This record gives sequence, C-alpha cells and structure tokens, in this order.
Amino acid sequence: MSQSQPPVTLLTDFDDFYVAAMRGVVASHGVPVVDVFHRVPPQDVRAAAFVLRNVAPYFPGGTVHCVVVDPGVGTERRSLVVEAGGQYLVGPDNGVLVPAAHHLDDDPTFYDAPYDDPESHTFHGRDVFAPQAARVAAEGVDAVAGDRVEPEALEDEPPAFDEGEAHATVVYLDRFGNAVTDLGGDEVLARIDYGEEVVVDGRPLPFERTYAAVERGEPLALVGSHGNFEIAAREESGADALGLSSGDDVTVRAETKDG
Amino acid sequence: MSQSQPPVTLLTDFDDFYVAAMRGVVASHGVPVVDVFHRVPPQDVRAAAFVLRNVAPYFPGGTVHCVVVDPGVGTERRSLVVEAGGQYLVGPDNGVLVPAAHHLDDDPTFYDAPYDDPESHTFHGRDVFAPQAARVAAEGVDAVAGDRVEPEALEDEPPAFDEGEAHATVVYLDRFGNAVTDLGGDEVLARIDYGEEVVVDGRPLPFERTYAAVERGEPLALVGSHGNFEIAAREESGADALGLSSGDDVTVRAETKDG
Amino acid sequence: MSQSQPPVTLLTDFDDFYVAAMRGVVASHGVPVVDVFHRVPPQDVRAAAFVLRNVAPYFPGGTVHCVVVDPGVGTERRSLVVEAGGQYLVGPDNGVLVPAAHHLDDDPTFYDAPYDDPESHTFHGRDVFAPQAARVAAEGVDAVAGDRVEPEALEDEPPAFDEGEAHATVVYLDRFGNAVTDLGGDEVLARIDYGEEVVVDGRPLPFERTYAAVERGEPLALVGSHGNFEIAAREESGADALGLSSGDDVTVRAETKDG
Repeated sequence: MSQSQPPVTLLTDFDDFYVAAMRGVVASHGVPVVDVFHRVPPQDVRAAAFVLRNVAPYFPGGTVHCVVVDPGVGTERRSLVVEAGGQYLVGPDNGVLVPAAHHLDDDPTFYDAPYDDPESHTFHGRDVFAPQAARVAAEGVDAVAGDRVEPEALEDEPPAFDEGEAHATVVYLDRFGNAVTDLGGDEVLARIDYGEEVVVDGRPLPFERTYAAVERGEPLALVGSHGNFEIAAREESGADALGLSSGDDVTVRAETKDG
Repeated sequence: MSQSQPPVTLLTDFDDFYVAAMRGVVASHGVPVVDVFHRVPPQDVRAAAFVLRNVAPYFPGGTVHCVVVDPGVGTERRSLVVEAGGQYLVGPDNGVLVPAAHHLDDDPTFYDAPYDDPESHTFHGRDVFAPQAARVAAEGVDAVAGDRVEPEALEDEPPAFDEGEAHATVVYLDRFGNAVTDLGGDEVLARIDYGEEVVVDGRPLPFERTYAAVERGEPLALVGSHGNFEIAAREESGADALGLSSGDDVTVRAETKDG
Repeated sequence: MSQSQPPVTLLTDFDDFYVAAMRGVVASHGVPVVDVFHRVPPQDVRAAAFVLRNVAPYFPGGTVHCVVVDPGVGTERRSLVVEAGGQYLVGPDNGVLVPAAHHLDDDPTFYDAPYDDPESHTFHGRDVFAPQAARVAAEGVDAVAGDRVEPEALEDEPPAFDEGEAHATVVYLDRFGNAVTDLGGDEVLARIDYGEEVVVDGRPLPFERTYAAVERGEPLALVGSHGNFEIAAREESGADALGLSSGDDVTVRAETKDG
C-alpha cells in the first residue's frame, strides 16, 4: 500500500459546485483528490489557517494541500508553494499557509509560484492554484517553484499569559457552537490543572478534560482535540452562552495557586 | 479493475472540518477513502445504524466502514471490529454496527478492538476508530481484532404486526421530509397490496408504489428504496403532514380483507 | 500517473445519505468516484445542466459523469449514455446531458441505454444510472449503449440579442447570491466593453471585469468564471438586489455606441 500516490487536498470557502472544477483539474493529472473542507466562512483567512494547521499533520508525506480562501483574487498577490515536513502547501500569499507550515516543520521553505494570467479573473482556484497543486503532486515541487520568498504573515503572534491574563481570539466557531481560540492549550495547562477554574471575559468557567464533566447546558472551558483552548457548553452552544462570534477577542485569566 | 484496493468509508455526525483529519489518517495507510455521510443528527445512534444498514450492501467485498456516532466518547465503551459478508465494520460498541452486520451476514463475527488511551479525550474518530479501520483495510482484520464478544444491541427488535397493528419508530427524517420507520416493507406487503389503505396514527393514507400516485401535497405511505415503510407526501413533507419527528413512535394499522 | 483510471463523477439533487449507495456501486466496479455536486435545487434539470456543462471540461478523457436530477423517475423515460469529446455522460433523457455534450464536442453521440426494471421504483440513481456509469468506466461504452437516438432537449435555445435586447433566464443562483443566466458572456462582449453600462430589467448596472470594481453592496454585471452573463453585488447578493430567483426571465439591454 505504501506506494500509492499521495493526494491533493482541497480547502476552500466555496461551498458550492465551483469546487468540482478543481477536482477535475486534479484528476486530469492522475492524482487522487481528497476534500478537507469547503465551508470556511467566506474570506476568513484566519479560520482557514486554523483548519489547515489542525488537519494537515494527519496526512501522509507527499500530500499537497491546495487552499483557496482568497480575498485578493484578481489583484497582484502572489501564489506560494511551501515545502514543510515532507508535505506541500499551495495557495495565495495572504498568511493562510503560514501556521500549518510552521506546525509541520521547524524550518519550512516558501517559494513564489509564478503564474500566467488565467482564463478567469474571478476563479484562480480552478485556473491557478489547482493546476499548480496537481503539478506538484504529479511532477514534483520544482515544476512550479520559483524564488524562495518571505511569506506574508497573519498579523498576530499566538497569545501568551502576562500577569495571569492572555488576550486570545476566536479563530473558529464550529457547528456545535464550540468557540476555538488561538490560545494554546499548553499555555493554560502550564498555569492550572483540569478541575480548576478559568475566567473568560470576567466569567468563571470550569476547566475540564471532557464535556461530560459538567451538567447539560452548562458552559465550560477545555483543550480541544486541536490542542487549543476552547469555550464550549455541554450539548449546547458555548459561543451563545458567552455571546461570542468568530474573530472576537476574549480575555482569559488563569490564576495559579501561587499567584 | 478488480484488483483495486477496497475503500475505507466514513459515517459520522461531525458535519464540520473535523472529518478531514480522519480522511488523512486513512490516506496515510495508502487506502482510498469514501464518504458515506456526515450529517447524521448529533449522537443519533439509531439514525446512523439505519444509514449504515441501508448503504453498506452496495459496497464491494473488503470495504471497511468506519462509523463514529458516539455519545460515549471519553467513557470506557469498547471499540468493535465486525466481519460480515466479506466487509468490515469499525466503531463504538453502542449498537450502531449491529443492524448492518446482521443485514450483511446471517452470522457476523464481532471482535473487541482494544486501543491505548489516545492523544485526545474528545476525538476518538481521529485517534481510535480511523486508525483501526485503516489498519483493517491495509493489514487485515487480525491487525486490530481481539477477543470475540457479544455486542451491545440497540434496544428494540424490528416491529411486527399483531392483530393488524404494528408499533414502529421513525428512524430517519430525510431532507425531503420523508419519515422512514423501522417497520419492514415486507411486513406491510404481507398484509395489504399497493393501492389499498394503511392507517398511520389513526389517519388513513393511500399505500402506493410511487410518490406520483397521489396529488401534489397529498400524504401517502410507501416502501422506500431502503425497503422500509415510509410516510411521505408528494413534493411536500410527509413528516410535517403527520406531525412526525425523528424518534417518534407511530402506530400502523394494515387490515387484510379477511380481517 | 497518466495510466490512472479516470473517475465516475456524481451530480444529483439528493443532498442526503442516499448518494452513498451510488458511491458504493461505483467502488464495486473498482472505479474511483468523485463528487461533482449534490445540492442541485430539487428536480431543477436546467440548473443541473448548467453545472455539468460548466464543470465537465475540467475532467480528464475517459471520465464518466453520472447525473441524477430526474423528475421522471418511475416513468418510462429512457436512460442515455453520451460520448462527447473523449468523456461519457450517463443520465435520464430529460435534456440534462445535452448542453454539456454540445460544449464538449461539436458532434456528440447519444445512445439509448436500456435497463431492466430495477429493485426500487424510486431510486434509479442507485439501481440504474450508477451501475451503467460504472460499467462504462470499467468495461467501455459498448457495455451499456443501445441504439443511437435523438435526445430530448431542454426547450430553449441560448438567448441572443435582437435590437439591443436579449431575453435571458436565471439558470443558477449560487450561495453568494450571484444570479447566473444562460446568456453567453461573448454575446454581451460583442456589443459593449467592460466599464460600460448594461441594463437589466430596466435597471442600469456597471458591467465590470471583477467584483472589486464597484463599492461594497453595489450591484454589477459581469461574465462569471463559467463564461455566462451574471448579476452580482460586491460582498452582497445580486439576486436580492434585483429581486431575482432561479428560473426567472430577465431582459438585458446592451446598447453599442453606434446604436
């Protein structure tokens, strides 16, 4: 089995039939295609970056992840191809590839991926990124990589605690209403243990290992399967309970016993 | 073509990007992955069991169906691997695999599938079930099967008629508003013919071969493509017409001419 | 890579787990399966025809597109298999395959694809069309093709301008609210240039190359990535702005400077 062709994956905010043309482009290069997700909130680069970082580590070496969440379509922004931990990432140079690249590899390599003006001014997913991803999978990274470049980054560093307080951002609201933040679960676990209390936007919440530790409907905080600090509620929406939306800033207080 | 690798299929209630990590795990074993469905109503074990039983027979020998509808995640419930009719089923020991196993095989074999404590307390789909399913596909069932065991069953037997009346349950509401019950179509057809009348919760309905047999908007009963007794309405919602929700009990009267 | 098996694709209006049985049928023939789209508006043959014509050109030679948008299920309508530009199309004889066939090939060949009465009266996707598509992919078109036939056509010709006015139809409303018409973008570009004005249902709209050419919320007209004339609004719904629904007729005026 180990000689099977690694796939090209697709991650977009299209949520419509448009993605099928990208599947066709990949299939035309004889490469298997696997969906990551197509319901990223429209043009939410941060949410797409979170999904990619979360999911990419579970794919095999040689996989090419093609990401099209691209508010800059039709402008002069570059296309990038990234080599990271034996996998490849292809997408616009808007920061969407950066967190996954650094999660997969201590020292990822970013290349400009030059392209000719495509058929359509509005559908670079089909006309630029999918062809590049398919060629990387079928022919190797040299087929599309140009100069090594410094990528555009998402503006913010992962948050850290300062005097017991961290300023986090809700990077993903899932369909259960779990509000996933960019605060690393390790940061919280370095300060308090499961079973203790954490204060989110002034509201004390139990910090637990699983949803089942609280009563139905009760909000809690935990470290999600993605490793990030998350606000949830058992069989309810944690986002509704705390009035949170995607992109919101939240203040997290975690007081160690010794201050 | 006959030597192609049979797939691992995925059936979950995730309806979010989380399933992509499971696709990656399967791809990492060099096995093709095919989606069954990810919009099972949250934690609705009975609905998932119905979908699996309905769909599995159409897949080739050697297919491994990985099912993650798992209210018990984080508790001590076992993982099972099942050998049934040349196919394999992997999932939690909560009854979800049982109807499909008995539909595929008169005498399916259930094995405990022991696992070490995984990375995450909340995402056994990615950390337990997908790896087990992928190993069954890539290495064979012995790679994960432990002792033969008796599985937990869904509590209820398929309903049967007693003095012209059967007590059925709505096991699936599809997006058209068709209310599929657990009552076998054969049970009904053993009593009445198409074109006769059946009484559901006291309301007489035409029992027909196709939707087109009644006027637009009119409710009817029929045997769906899944072989089960179903309440529908032509180009409308049969569930709305009779006020039915998933999980509801319905009383079905089918009077043979001779009583 | 060039020897990989071309896929069977699936395009339906099912939007539920039913499509998984079709995936199983295809996998049972050892053929890879790729989704095109399953959220075609129920029984909207015209929308499905638009999607297929739009997407098929991006798939490799040998691909078999299986389309099940089929208001006539259970009636005597034929099944067709079409050979067009090195690809194959399988589906009901209701016009859904015709625009793609003529887009792929100047002279496509339509064959009757006879079938025996299937297991189910309501699920020909699983019992008729998917098996035929899989056999075309695995065994070749002769395995299912009967006599050459003239297909049923969708009633209308693509619209053209007459005295500066064209009568178009909204064939697809995407999730962004873009209203795609059946009017070819080339027809419009033959009369006016980007940057000029077009009048839709009496309302003057800027005709632009990209969404970004207008202010947020402002409606505009453009040629979509599919090549058709489309009514949109920047980061808003163009359909809402003009009160348009799928299937609506719209009058498009494009006045050349010389009248």
